[in-house]
This record gives sequence, structure tokens and C-alpha cells, in this order.
Amino acid sequence: MMNPLSYAVIGTGAIGGYYGAKLARAGKQVHFLLHSDYEEVCKQGLRVDSCDGDFRLPQVNAYNDTRQMPKADVVLVGLKSTNEHLLKTLLPPLLHEKTLVILIQNGIGLEADVQAWFPDTALAAGLAFICSAKTEPGRINHQCYGSINIGNFSCKDADLIQAVLADFIEAEIDAHEVEYYEARWRKAVWNMPFNGMTVALQTQTDRLLKNPATRQLIYEQMMEVIGAANALGVQGLDESFAQKMMQMTDEMVPYSPSMRLDFDFHRPMEIHYIYTRPIAEARAVGFEMPRLEMLERELLFIDAR
Amino acid sequence: MMNPLSYAVIGTGAIGGYYGAKLARAGKQVHFLLHSDYEEVCKQGLRVDSCDGDFRLPQVNAYNDTRQMPKADVVLVGLKSTNEHLLKTLLPPLLHEKTLVILIQNGIGLEADVQAWFPDTALAAGLAFICSAKTEPGRINHQCYGSINIGNFSCKDADLIQAVLADFIEAEIDAHEVEYYEARWRKAVWNMPFNGMTVALQTQTDRLLKNPATRQLIYEQMMEVIGAANALGVQGLDESFAQKMMQMTDEMVPYSPSMRLDFDFHRPMEIHYIYTRPIAEARAVGFEMPRLEMLERELLFIDAR
Repeated sequence: MMNPLSYAVIGTGAIGGYYGAKLARAGKQVHFLLHSDYEEVCKQGLRVDSCDGDFRLPQVNAYNDTRQMPKADVVLVGLKSTNEHLLKTLLPPLLHEKTLVILIQNGIGLEADVQAWFPDTALAAGLAFICSAKTEPGRINHQCYGSINIGNFSCKDADLIQAVLADFIEAEIDAHEVEYYEARWRKAVWNMPFNGMTVALQTQTDRLLKNPATRQLIYEQMMEVIGAANALGVQGLDESFAQKMMQMTDEMVPYSPSMRLDFDFHRPMEIHYIYTRPIAEARAVGFEMPRLEMLERELLFIDAR
Repeated sequence: MMNPLSYAVIGTGAIGGYYGAKLARAGKQVHFLLHSDYEEVCKQGLRVDSCDGDFRLPQVNAYNDTRQMPKADVVLVGLKSTNEHLLKTLLPPLLHEKTLVILIQNGIGLEADVQAWFPDTALAAGLAFICSAKTEPGRINHQCYGSINIGNFSCKDADLIQAVLADFIEAEIDAHEVEYYEARWRKAVWNMPFNGMTVALQTQTDRLLKNPATRQLIYEQMMEVIGAANALGVQGLDESFAQKMMQMTDEMVPYSPSMRLDFDFHRPMEIHYIYTRPIAEARAVGFEMPRLEMLERELLFIDAR
């Protein structure tokens, strides 16, 4: 039986803020790193407007500097991957010998980069299936879904992963363990088409699927991701998964993915880990993704503007 | 020795208006079909603001109905190809047994369609290399270039083509005879990337080439067109032609191609003949153009909006 795990959240936004707040509400020890929202959260705590019921944490452990934070058993990283390099300085004060760092971020190649910076640290991928956004300082709007899949990357302590899953489930978060690489690519099947296309065409998921031309394009882009994943040795992904993703998106509310929100709010877009890296990994084994590479280039042009 | 040729211009805009006005200035008999500009041109004639020297034709043969026009030896079609179907009713009053119809339009498949509607009419392609725009009723702004290549499609009278070329040259238009199909595909090498990309990214030619990501994309799109042309039996097109087109565009003034102007002025875009048809012709011989097909779909989405 383990002692209760302590958590640190780096990036208390739509994702890190949501999962951290749920854990804190369930009585877990959670320490939040904040940046622009620090003073507001010190005063008001965190608010979560959620489809599962709104809640408020009047008082949270808030910090604006990881050097002030206690070491954590588990670090949840909800940082935008455009700031991934900041982990080099943000993480060290939080790490003890057995700390598990979970990267709840979108894209391919994140774990490899962070592992290169911290060769001895246990890493896992966190795949969040959630529609949420930070609408004002310290306030998170959770629209729908909310599950998380955790994929072990380099943690040798299987019990620790299980203990984290147990904490999430206790906090009423639907959480499962998955195979890390397959899970990252499965998520990319949705992320790569929709994040970029909603920016390139200044639209939302529903309109892309209602227009027959872009519906076909989205499907072909999904099949490029599936082809890349297969070429990289991921099993069990085929046309039926693309069809399932299309159908799931048909049934969703009209949605602006995170990259569209980043664009709208003039934040840098996560082009590197969502496009450049997976395209490079696929090319390294001889698989080309011409449509998604074109989308990457359109996004680079838009981002530079 | 032929009698002087009579000309009819259908679509007195940036293209038809420019070449027709040059011919009229040189003393050729030219009859202009006008639509929204009809009354203005009856009153004021045509004005051409040209990099080669401005000129004005105070009085021109202006019509707003082809049924009022005399039959012509040569019909210059400068219509937007989105209105191609109008030729079914516009052309018949102008045709005698030997009339040559020259389609000065962008795209692939135009001659095949018009020939199907008029099986016995002599057709040629007109490939205009010109930067020009209609800036107000009856007024054309000719910015640069101005040459025209004529490719015989179904004219059995080789002398007629030569006589037309002689008239163009007499009118100080740089004109050459070319092989029709090769010429259409050569022009597509520039048209397919730049027309759509300036719309999709709301930009101009120079910016697409200055950004390394879109510069590479434009080059790859050019190579898709060259690959398609080769697959369709066009000889003599290779990487060096793409490089030449890149360099030529580098040296051009920042330019908005016709599709960008159509978009800006809320006119329908010529997606069918510039994208859909060449993509279909290539696919029919097993050649895929994924980047240009993606661009076509983005344009169809934008056009429907």
C-alpha cells in the first residue's frame, strides 16, 4: 500500500486545470503552477463550469514558481507544447527519484524530447479526450467528455501507474491504461486533420464534415495518419477507425479544436509536435503524408503572419 | 491572300478587352460583347492603362446581345469559365462555316466541352501571359507582360491560324503558335499552385515564395502538374521548367492571380476547369495529385461559404 500520492500541475489551463481540480476536489494533494492567473487564483481559487456539474475550489495550493513548490510524486504537464523547452527549468525542482511525469499534451515526439533532457525520469503520455477551455483567469469551461488514457513511456514502477489511475478514478475521471505509442497515433488520427483544417479554413468541425469536398479530404487525411501509424508498426488501426472518428465527430457539438482557439487568441500554434514530428517519423520509415504535410506548410505560413 | 478578318470578343474584361482593344487600335474590325459595362462603353469607349503606354478607343462596336452582332471570322472568348455554359447560346449567332473560336481562358478541358456543344466549329486555345485587371467599367489596367500563345485544337485551316497570328503581331501583341495540349499543361504548372494558394492563404505570389514552407509546397505542387502532364503524354516538361516558373515569379511584382481577384470581388472561382478537370484527366491515367486535390477541396469549401 502506497502513501497518498502528491501531485503537481504544470500549466493550470483547460487541461491541467481540469484534471488537477478534479483530483483536488477528491481530496488529493495537488499543487498548481500558475502564470498569468496566479494572483486571481490565490484570491478566488479555481472554478470549473462542467457539463457534469459546476464546482469551485475556494482555496488551492497556488504557486508562480516551481522552486517554491514541494517535490511531487506525480507531475501533470498541461503546458502548451510550444513551451516544451520551459520544462528544462520548470521540472527539476519538482522531481524526486521516483517522480512520474505525465505529459497531457497533443502530438508525437514529446516523450522522446523530455526524456532526452531528463534521462532518468519516469515518463508517461496522457491522452485527454475532453472538450474544455479556460474562459477567464482561474475559470475552466468543461463542455463535454473528460476521459484520460495513460500510456507508460519509461516508468519501471507499474504499481505507480496503477495508483495514479486509481486516484483519477476516485476523482470521477474516466481513466485507462493504454499502450503509449499506439495511443499517441490513435489520437493523431483525429488531431492532425481537425486541428489544422479548422485553422486553415477558419471553421469548425461540423462544417468541415457537412461539405462533401472537405469531408472527403478529412477522411483522406485520417487515412494518411493511419497509414503512417501502420508503417511505424502500430497494429489494429484501419479504415474502420477512421470511419468511427468521422461518426463520432458528426455526433459532437460544432467544435473548435485547441489549435483553432490558439489561433483565435493569437497564441502560437502547436505545429511542431502535432505535424512536423509525426510527418518526420513517418518519412523516416518511407511513408509520405502529402496532404498533412501541405496542411503543416499552410499552418507555418499562417503562424508566421 | 485573305480578306481582312473580322473579330468578335465575348467577355470584354481584363483579357478579352485587352486583346480586342489592341486589335481595334491597329485598325482591325472588332465587335465587343458587353454586359454590365455596355452603356458606359457606348458612351466612353474603352480605356487601356498599359505598362506599354496608355490608350483610349473613344468609339468601339459595342453590343449587349450576340444576336445583334455580325458573324465573325474569329471569336475571342474571354469569358470566365464559370460561365462556359453561356457559350451554348452566345456563340451561334456569331458563327459562319469557317469561324475560328479561340478560348482565351485558363484550365484544362475547355475545348473538349465547347467542341461537344459545337461539333463542327473550329476551335483553338489562347494562352495569355498577362497581368491585367478590369478596374472600372470599360477600363482595363494592363500591368505587365501581354503575350499570347495560340494552340490549334480542331481548325483544319492552317492559314487561318497564321492570319490571326499576323493580325496579333501587327497589333503589337507578342503571339506564337504552340501545341495545344502541351501549352495548356505548361500554363497549368503556374496556374494550379498560385491561383488557389493565394486564395486559400489570402496572400500574393511573393509572400508564398518568401516563406520557406509555402515555397517548398508551391514547388511540389508544380511537380504534381508536371508529373500529371508527363503521365498524359506531354513531352519536355521536367524539374527545370518548375524551377524556371519559380524564378520568373520571384522576379514578378507581388501578384494576385485571377482567382484571388474573383474571390476578393465575390465572383465564383474557376475551380472546375483549373482544378477538377486536370485532376480528373490525370487520375484517368492513374496519376494522383494529392496536394492540388486538397487545394481543390479547400477552394470548394471556401466557394460554398
